[in-house]
Amino acid sequence: MNINEVYSLIESEINEVNSELQRNLDSDVEMVNEVASYVFQSGGKRLRPVFLVLSSKLAGYSGIRTAVLSGVVEYIHTATLIHDDVIDGANYRRGKESANRVFGNDITVLCGDFLYSRAFINLVKDGDPNIQMILANAAKTMSEGEVFQLIKTADFFLKYEDYEKIIYSKTAVLFSACCEIGAILGNMDIEKRNILKEFGKMVGLAFQMSDDILDYLGNPENTGKKPGTDLREGKMTLPMIILRSELNREEIKSIRDFFTSEDFTEEKLSYILSLMEQYDIKRKSEKFVDDYIFKAKDLLSEFEDNEFKESLLFLADYMVQRDR
Amino acid sequence: MNINEVYSLIESEINEVNSELQRNLDSDVEMVNEVASYVFQSGGKRLRPVFLVLSSKLAGYSGIRTAVLSGVVEYIHTATLIHDDVIDGANYRRGKESANRVFGNDITVLCGDFLYSRAFINLVKDGDPNIQMILANAAKTMSEGEVFQLIKTADFFLKYEDYEKIIYSKTAVLFSACCEIGAILGNMDIEKRNILKEFGKMVGLAFQMSDDILDYLGNPENTGKKPGTDLREGKMTLPMIILRSELNREEIKSIRDFFTSEDFTEEKLSYILSLMEQYDIKRKSEKFVDDYIFKAKDLLSEFEDNEFKESLLFLADYMVQRDR
Repeated sequence: MNINEVYSLIESEINEVNSELQRNLDSDVEMVNEVASYVFQSGGKRLRPVFLVLSSKLAGYSGIRTAVLSGVVEYIHTATLIHDDVIDGANYRRGKESANRVFGNDITVLCGDFLYSRAFINLVKDGDPNIQMILANAAKTMSEGEVFQLIKTADFFLKYEDYEKIIYSKTAVLFSACCEIGAILGNMDIEKRNILKEFGKMVGLAFQMSDDILDYLGNPENTGKKPGTDLREGKMTLPMIILRSELNREEIKSIRDFFTSEDFTEEKLSYILSLMEQYDIKRKSEKFVDDYIFKAKDLLSEFEDNEFKESLLFLADYMVQRDR
Repeated sequence: MNINEVYSLIESEINEVNSELQRNLDSDVEMVNEVASYVFQSGGKRLRPVFLVLSSKLAGYSGIRTAVLSGVVEYIHTATLIHDDVIDGANYRRGKESANRVFGNDITVLCGDFLYSRAFINLVKDGDPNIQMILANAAKTMSEGEVFQLIKTADFFLKYEDYEKIIYSKTAVLFSACCEIGAILGNMDIEKRNILKEFGKMVGLAFQMSDDILDYLGNPENTGKKPGTDLREGKMTLPMIILRSELNREEIKSIRDFFTSEDFTEEKLSYILSLMEQYDIKRKSEKFVDDYIFKAKDLLSEFEDNEFKESLLFLADYMVQRDR
């Protein structure tokens, strides 16, 4: 199996999602549509809709609600994303100038708010209280997680559990919601629904960890990003947490101030990368990712084999692919 | 009747609202609760809950849902308010330092997002699709209105209709929603429900107009605000729009650049205030407010007389009281 086969399998559903995303940009304030179009045109892989659609297919559902609900998920995701870009002062997003840079912070914050309310309008229209609660709670968790991450900025001694809480909130909770919603659409029993929910969570955690590893240890030619953004922004992530656990007292002393002082330098990054190489941090970090993906895939053994299950298994690996 | 009598009449309901607002600040990220508490402690008159509760009482409802739904309304209102303060770079709010000044823009934006999602969680719990749609649409209108206002910044030739669209979005739509929700809670027929909805809209428009008049022409000792904030921020509001319509070509030329250039001076403000005095703008602006309040109160003639109706009539006048 390859990624194109996955997209082919659910091509009409994903096309519906893209139509849905455009269809709702109907504000009579033209600027709102312009900002939202700009953000949605920048593409992205629609990973969350893919998980939602595949889960619903695995649960035996076929219908238009996957497009509506995927639209809601993408609106929530995009709202948090553009608010984060404002907060991080990001200049680029998916290789294009970020919305905040093109339209300014003010309008971008407000368009995020617009997308939240657009999401909830469609959620109300869809009319399922269970799904409404799952997504309203996910949105709450995401905003709380971002605050938590901000508070923990520059905290070199961030606990692993707190790191996991952060990546659960920022990434895993929404993937988990997508898979659970798919199960609900297909009327799966509560046990299977919880399995899919857990599957989405595991994949989401592994996905964010993988991203955090690439930030230090990825090949810039593949990622298209300068390495060390997280160091620059004072975000403690998996590879640094593992590195910290390997270092002796002297080495810790030598780098802990990198996270509290504002002045990032390439020398500091190089020094950290050399320590990461010395202590084999890439392999050790990837072990965490592999464990989560293994657990995630194992969960699916509860389901009968078909092309949708096969696609989800493929995607679990694809999401954490290393040559990105 | 006076304002204390109104509050006494619905004292237990408003106490329930205040408990509700506190009760939901249960994030396991302590900072989120801290910011929200800070914002809610700064008080405010809970005007929106007062309208919601009185409308529900007029409609014959008595029960706990007014507290839950008032909480939702206050969360949405507060979310937009703290996002606006970030955007305007406001330093003060209700005589206290603004949240963005105390906690920073980043955390304040995220806590606004938290309040939105908290609102929607409670709205889902309440479970009425009509009310959900009214408030989701109100939130959408509010964010669109803010974008529209931003686009129209420094537009000296803003049309009156566009001004009304802005104040409808930023203020009137939520008051209108509160009154309509009250009607729904008491199972009023659609005709009466629309009357209350319209009443809330009229009062909301008049309230915002009154605020915009005070910004130029209020007594700083009563308002506690420096006059001319709207001029400083390039916002065209009612008194300026009316003044513009009175001026000759030369006078317009002499002031229109005040709105496009960044450098506000006290001299410019003084000059505008002298023109406003010369052309009797205070009285002419207040005429607009009075017309709306007259229409609003007239709408209530459809309802039988009782203390709740009397309170709403009193509040209509109270909201636009001039010695504030």
